[in-house]
Amino acid sequence: MTRSTRADYRTFRTITTRWMDNDAYGHMNNVVHYSLFDTAVNGWLIESGVLDIHKGAQIGLVVETGCKYFAEMAFPDTIHAGIRVARLGTSSVRYEIGLFRNDESEAAAEGFFVHVYVDAATRRPAPLAPALRAKLERIVS
Amino acid sequence: MTRSTRADYRTFRTITTRWMDNDAYGHMNNVVHYSLFDTAVNGWLIESGVLDIHKGAQIGLVVETGCKYFAEMAFPDTIHAGIRVARLGTSSVRYEIGLFRNDESEAAAEGFFVHVYVDAATRRPAPLAPALRAKLERIVS
Amino acid sequence: MTRSTRADYRTFRTITTRWMDNDAYGHMNNVVHYSLFDTAVNGWLIESGVLDIHKGAQIGLVVETGCKYFAEMAFPDTIHAGIRVARLGTSSVRYEIGLFRNDESEAAAEGFFVHVYVDAATRRPAPLAPALRAKLERIVS
Amino acid sequence: MTRSTRADYRTFRTITTRWMDNDAYGHMNNVVHYSLFDTAVNGWLIESGVLDIHKGAQIGLVVETGCKYFAEMAFPDTIHAGIRVARLGTSSVRYEIGLFRNDESEAAAEGFFVHVYVDAATRRPAPLAPALRAKLERIVS
Repeated sequence: MTRSTRADYRTFRTITTRWMDNDAYGHMNNVVHYSLFDTAVNGWLIESGVLDIHKGAQIGLVVETGCKYFAEMAFPDTIHAGIRVARLGTSSVRYEIGLFRNDESEAAAEGFFVHVYVDAATRRPAPLAPALRAKLERIVS
Repeated sequence: MTRSTRADYRTFRTITTRWMDNDAYGHMNNVVHYSLFDTAVNGWLIESGVLDIHKGAQIGLVVETGCKYFAEMAFPDTIHAGIRVARLGTSSVRYEIGLFRNDESEAAAEGFFVHVYVDAATRRPAPLAPALRAKLERIVS
Repeated sequence: MTRSTRADYRTFRTITTRWMDNDAYGHMNNVVHYSLFDTAVNGWLIESGVLDIHKGAQIGLVVETGCKYFAEMAFPDTIHAGIRVARLGTSSVRYEIGLFRNDESEAAAEGFFVHVYVDAATRRPAPLAPALRAKLERIVS
Repeated sequence: MTRSTRADYRTFRTITTRWMDNDAYGHMNNVVHYSLFDTAVNGWLIESGVLDIHKGAQIGLVVETGCKYFAEMAFPDTIHAGIRVARLGTSSVRYEIGLFRNDESEAAAEGFFVHVYVDAATRRPAPLAPALRAKLERIVS
């Protein structure tokens, strides 16, 4: 994975950092990045009208995640999270997320997570709902 | 403590919520509010030029905190944190913070914390630095 | 609130600290204490058989919390959380929690939270279930 | 990566879960696993006498992390984190961690992180200190 720029992502979410994001070394702890990934993607899904946390018939279970860290970020930075869909399967989707610090053009960190969609009640894999798939296709890169 | 409106606070910070803020009951967990208090006040102090996390001669130790919860908030709400100084002592300050959900006019939660300033090396109480005191006086209510 | 000793609490839970509990000042951030309060009380309720997160007819909503901080704690300390019930109402309960660092006899921090029980579906106040009340009475102090 | 058993790891740390680890879906959020990885490895390093958070001449910067999720965990589970060193370079180390739920023999999740050691002041790569290397060699697998 080479270090992406903003042009490599399809949609963006702005996330404010928090005091607690900084660890004993005074920079954003490596764990926080994953919280930003979840926040960016789920926020986009909710605003796109294809994720209802409480009543949805399907939920996306995370089966794999990863991140590469290129540069430090720290509170009180503002983070711009770029999102793209790298792979769209029958019942799964791989999201890639780039975290851009303030107005920087190169990503400070880049990661991914893979959602497998399951029925909320049975927790067995289920094909992506058509409305969700249609939205995801718009940010495939 | 009666439920305040925005007019009861002196300065505001905007904080985005995160997926992880929601607990098993689907609303912002009561712990998260305190993270927002820290973030609002320390963010204001840093941007006001009176807090340097890494090199400051003094640090503010938290000796007491509290919060009352009036209404639920949840990801993906945007939170507007109002700040005021309720008491300014020789080496201590009591901050009060109101959390306003999206465009609501009444606080969803209100809390406080008391900072006692200590020397960063000895951790013994120290009078508030003049530049810090001058900034704090501007948001006393 | 004077600083309590272990004898002032009625039951205990052991909680391990985490790397992320330490903030930029190298000690446990003041927010983390509230996470330990929730963990201690809800853990005790679950093991006592009176809290079912997913299927319970009632849930406890937090309406007020507070904490006083007497001494620093930090990862990798082990925390012993003492619990007592300070007030038991028709539909509410006030828990008090003392956090003891490693083998220390005096609390490093003490706090409380007030749960108001509501019907899980309607979110309106409901009298404490008899089985819950019976358990709580055993740790009233 | 196939799903490991406890025999595949070289040393273990016990970590208690927290109420806030459960997200809106009622299971441990995928982000929390990384917090447990940090906690397990840094806890072991501190108790082994080769990590001093505050005064160490070197710090380990995280450059890459990843995790695969096989089964759900949730509060109030107790987690046993197995640790092994998969690669030991001049100034870097790859840790692999398996998270075992309660008394289960197969890992519920497995991940890794790569530390590059840098000088605490200059943040430039530095060879692993001999005492650290000696400890790490004992858990190479």
